Amino acid sequence: MVIHRLFYYEQVAAMILQGQVQALYLGDNKGLEKTPCPTLEFTLEGITGDKHAGFTKKADARNPEYKRGTMMRNDRQWSAVAPDELAEAARLMGIDCIDPAWVGANLAFDGIPNFTLLPKGTKLIFPSGAVLVVEAENMPCVGPGVVIASKYPEHKLTPQRFPKAAMHKRGLVGVIERAGVVHVGDPVTVEIYEAAGYPLPAET
Amino acid sequence: MVIHRLFYYEQVAAMILQGQVQALYLGDNKGLEKTPCPTLEFTLEGITGDKHAGFTKKADARNPEYKRGTMMRNDRQWSAVAPDELAEAARLMGIDCIDPAWVGANLAFDGIPNFTLLPKGTKLIFPSGAVLVVEAENMPCVGPGVVIASKYPEHKLTPQRFPKAAMHKRGLVGVIERAGVVHVGDPVTVEIYEAAGYPLPAET
Repeated sequence: MVIHRLFYYEQVAAMILQGQVQALYLGDNKGLEKTPCPTLEFTLEGITGDKHAGFTKKADARNPEYKRGTMMRNDRQWSAVAPDELAEAARLMGIDCIDPAWVGANLAFDGIPNFTLLPKGTKLIFPSGAVLVVEAENMPCVGPGVVIASKYPEHKLTPQRFPKAAMHKRGLVGVIERAGVVHVGDPVTVEIYEAAGYPLPAET
Repeated sequence: MVIHRLFYYEQVAAMILQGQVQALYLGDNKGLEKTPCPTLEFTLEGITGDKHAGFTKKADARNPEYKRGTMMRNDRQWSAVAPDELAEAARLMGIDCIDPAWVGANLAFDGIPNFTLLPKGTKLIFPSGAVLVVEAENMPCVGPGVVIASKYPEHKLTPQRFPKAAMHKRGLVGVIERAGVVHVGDPVTVEIYEAAGYPLPAET
């Protein structure tokens, strides 16, 4: 893990980590599961051939503030996980493993500690020039729990086990800032966004 | 100023402020200055008729990490200021006022303290349903300094005076999450994003 700091203007600092692309996955199917692949093409609109591509999306259960189906900005063009975090969720569920493909991830990363806790605004930079920006933690829901339960029928898991076991371990979603191709085995440079707090004046 | 807190899931909180739209501006001209108008139409692609509309943009002087002209995500679909902050910059420059139209703002807001310090991810919510998301503080550069100097020829201002006087007072830029029309005089609900820090483990 290589760490150094960059300074822009007088007040913004970025901490840099190095990780690696362990696996890539693509899916334009109706279900959640994706298929492993050696490369992914990222355009500004999304991952070519993936069902979450698009500048816009329809509001769904993750957007309770909008009527379902309302068109909105797509802040989930990609989804990524860290297998070490999924392994911990699997342990809590009493199973051997959770495959990133089962939970609909596009990318699986090695070597980035506390991956799911990378802040909004963090950039993932690849050798091709592709740059992904983190929008949010991917909050775990029961959908992947159904898939995981189907892989371990002998365990008779309820789908609700997954959201409990995977809270803060289910990875990140985000948008694409610059286009490019990403390959399995590529290094990734992680530029961590450091937010300043909002200073609210005393009420007058 | 009305303040209350909302809770999502178990760990995310949002602080809410209320402000008001003082003025709106539109411009598809080559220069920086915009024209006051009574309403603006926000689509997911940008402000209708404004030169900064688009899902994508070309990298410019604000993106030194990319070759100029590289296509990238447009995180500057709108620009907003608070006249009380511009008044303080004007005071530091020794002039009477800085009109939001001169510095290329689309929106001017009343009643939001420390407007420029609202964090990335903060949402500006309007009665029509339009929702804007803050991407970044708008770092002041010499372009508006040239316009301002031209308004006060007797002061013989150098354009560099503006970036120094307006640091952390030049407002915000961002993207559009949900479409809608905004009118002068509309109330705006400000849902402040609260970022969690990234916990970096000790190096092993």
